[in-house]
Amino acid sequence: MWFSRKRVNILLIAMGNTKKLPLKGFRDFLPEKMVIRREVIKRLRVVFEKYGFDELQTPALEYKEVLTGKYGEEAEKLMYLFKDRGGRDIGLRYDLTVPLARVATSYPDLPVPFKRYQIQPVWRAEKPQKGRYREFYQCDFDIVGSDSPMADAEIIAVLNDAFSALGFIEYRIKINSRSVLSSSLAKAGLSGKLHYPAITTIDKLEKKGKASVEKELLEKGLTANQINKLFAEIKKAKPDELLLKVIEYAQGLGVGQKLEFDATLSRGLDYYTGPIYEVAVEKPKIGSLAGGGRYDKLLSDLGGPNLPATGASIGLDRVIDVLEELNLWKDINKTAVKVLVTVFSEKNLSRSLEVTNLLRKSGINAELYLDAKTKLEKQLKYADKKGIVWAIIIGPEEILKQKVVLKNLKTKTQESIPEQALLTKIG
Amino acid sequence: MWFSRKRVNILLIAMGNTKKLPLKGFRDFLPEKMVIRREVIKRLRVVFEKYGFDELQTPALEYKEVLTGKYGEEAEKLMYLFKDRGGRDIGLRYDLTVPLARVATSYPDLPVPFKRYQIQPVWRAEKPQKGRYREFYQCDFDIVGSDSPMADAEIIAVLNDAFSALGFIEYRIKINSRSVLSSSLAKAGLSGKLHYPAITTIDKLEKKGKASVEKELLEKGLTANQINKLFAEIKKAKPDELLLKVIEYAQGLGVGQKLEFDATLSRGLDYYTGPIYEVAVEKPKIGSLAGGGRYDKLLSDLGGPNLPATGASIGLDRVIDVLEELNLWKDINKTAVKVLVTVFSEKNLSRSLEVTNLLRKSGINAELYLDAKTKLEKQLKYADKKGIVWAIIIGPEEILKQKVVLKNLKTKTQESIPEQALLTKIG
Repeated sequence: MWFSRKRVNILLIAMGNTKKLPLKGFRDFLPEKMVIRREVIKRLRVVFEKYGFDELQTPALEYKEVLTGKYGEEAEKLMYLFKDRGGRDIGLRYDLTVPLARVATSYPDLPVPFKRYQIQPVWRAEKPQKGRYREFYQCDFDIVGSDSPMADAEIIAVLNDAFSALGFIEYRIKINSRSVLSSSLAKAGLSGKLHYPAITTIDKLEKKGKASVEKELLEKGLTANQINKLFAEIKKAKPDELLLKVIEYAQGLGVGQKLEFDATLSRGLDYYTGPIYEVAVEKPKIGSLAGGGRYDKLLSDLGGPNLPATGASIGLDRVIDVLEELNLWKDINKTAVKVLVTVFSEKNLSRSLEVTNLLRKSGINAELYLDAKTKLEKQLKYADKKGIVWAIIIGPEEILKQKVVLKNLKTKTQESIPEQALLTKIG
Repeated sequence: MWFSRKRVNILLIAMGNTKKLPLKGFRDFLPEKMVIRREVIKRLRVVFEKYGFDELQTPALEYKEVLTGKYGEEAEKLMYLFKDRGGRDIGLRYDLTVPLARVATSYPDLPVPFKRYQIQPVWRAEKPQKGRYREFYQCDFDIVGSDSPMADAEIIAVLNDAFSALGFIEYRIKINSRSVLSSSLAKAGLSGKLHYPAITTIDKLEKKGKASVEKELLEKGLTANQINKLFAEIKKAKPDELLLKVIEYAQGLGVGQKLEFDATLSRGLDYYTGPIYEVAVEKPKIGSLAGGGRYDKLLSDLGGPNLPATGASIGLDRVIDVLEELNLWKDINKTAVKVLVTVFSEKNLSRSLEVTNLLRKSGINAELYLDAKTKLEKQLKYADKKGIVWAIIIGPEEILKQKVVLKNLKTKTQESIPEQALLTKIG
């Protein structure tokens, strides 16, 4: 229907017109893509707000100093940094955690706990590849200022409700804790400085398999004996008392069978200090679509206040890609427009206008074809191309009979009905 | 409740911490600000989609070449332009018209007419002042590819519905046409090259008064005789045939008494080619909050396809400022959270949990207080600070009686009711 992106690329490059495309790694969201994005965001907002989270938005640009804060050089290389016209070093938002820390500092009198969600784009100068973009949306929700295991349980309950609201069925929420992991690492005889390197490697267990992880652990300086012990310890690890509390509360919030303890879950980020969790779709085996955990020291490390925090991030673009790949939302339309009211001739225009007004007043998204001189066939083709399901035809005969023809462009069926019947047929 | 922005500024500057604030001219939208923004955007979307407009989103960054296109040096000075890590000259979106032209080029097979709306931030390095920001939202809706007066009428009908949906009552939609204006200018004896300079001056008539406009026209080289003639011609100007058609169609779409011909309306932009329109709130005298017109040559001038177009832009940030200034939305809350379920003690936690689950399952946004050890009074203070209207208290007595206490934090009243009654009281 639309030219594929690839086809357009070839065409425009051939025309010497590459700058007429969005930048590499950036995307236009045409109406048919926006419909699904909007619906996903809408459903997530409903869940967040049901659990008492309010929305926050922050500027696209921040001081470089704020952005680079505690992140190392590796992250800095991926940031869009530049000088503004006043010579200030600034840059584009790289994630939503740094702005959260900055906001917690800027407004020291915020109600605590501060439960906020934030759904905004971030920018990273990464090499674009399938599923990885330079502009993408993050969708974070966090509770700042509570060290209660109930806070962690709520994050888990939100994740559960969110994935259920999006229509996922075969997913699991895995839970573990950095303290459980550390205890396994200590029992295997690893010194403190090997803990974090080991964690980032164990994180790859599900993706790369045991052999690959063993090899990497050896390279990182663990002995074969330590590695064997480590796997044994992880195998017999059990949730500690705090984690049991989180699980109990999460069950109390209705999480049910979806939640399971997974002693191998390690989340490759160094800032987690307590419970960690991840949502993975298991059928088909898609892998992680969301994750998070407790990070009681990060905000102060980023220059923010000394407050405990817990939260998670949903990979919005990945979720949308997966919903499309799995065709989970079969019935979603390509357009918000429900019906096209065609125009038979200049003379009959006022009748089409009346019907359009009636539909719109009843809250039905109705498009009126704008040119009375266009042949009916072409008007219907336009509706079909746009993905509009219904079309209304009002010719001289219908005007005489005080009826309208309602045509379903998907099933190619049509019927002649009184005007008022439209509202129940389409609405 | 929160520290005022000014107070925080003083505090943080005193602390040597200016970089902990958002950049000058940029804003954080804390929850209480987001509630109203979200509601405004939601209502506008409903109207746009009712008229058959679909949403489009484009990247924040574009090639510099695309951004600067036909805009002159003056606009370029206000753009955030920089080199990315690949040495490409890029910049932040300056408006939503250039991306529309770029999209129309990138996807030559889009259905035409292309009716799209776009609500996204743009960035301009202007001197920040009251009501003027460096990051602000534009809200554009346009019909590309139709030269029918019905298209202009629809833009006007959308403006009317939009302002009515936002709760404005005393507003007017003024309409004029560049051809009517040109004819007045020609009759007053102005040469073609004086037309556009004269238009930009006449545009200031309402704001600055007749004397000031006369003075400026003299400075621009008009004779006193030409000026007198011009005012006389404008006074007796009437809508031409095309404009009468637009007005007739707009009436057919239900615009009613809000629409009025105003021969002095001139809109200070050079790209309009036909009908122009503007929405102004008259009581109190706020001035223009939205405007637009037909621009049949702009898209091709910007490097896009040779398609006629008409559309308008709503000043979203200005609209929100005015809604707040006029206090038009008295009943809007500061939070999406409807009720705080307090926790009496660790022992009674599970009961609070049950009630919270019940509320959430019924679609009521309910926050559970996260720390059972916090005194009840402090929990209620937290709810009040956050702007939550309702609080639920479940002590040992209520558990025995199988009741809950529902407290209204605004009216300071409370009653003891059965759990199920909550749903009708709060819902």
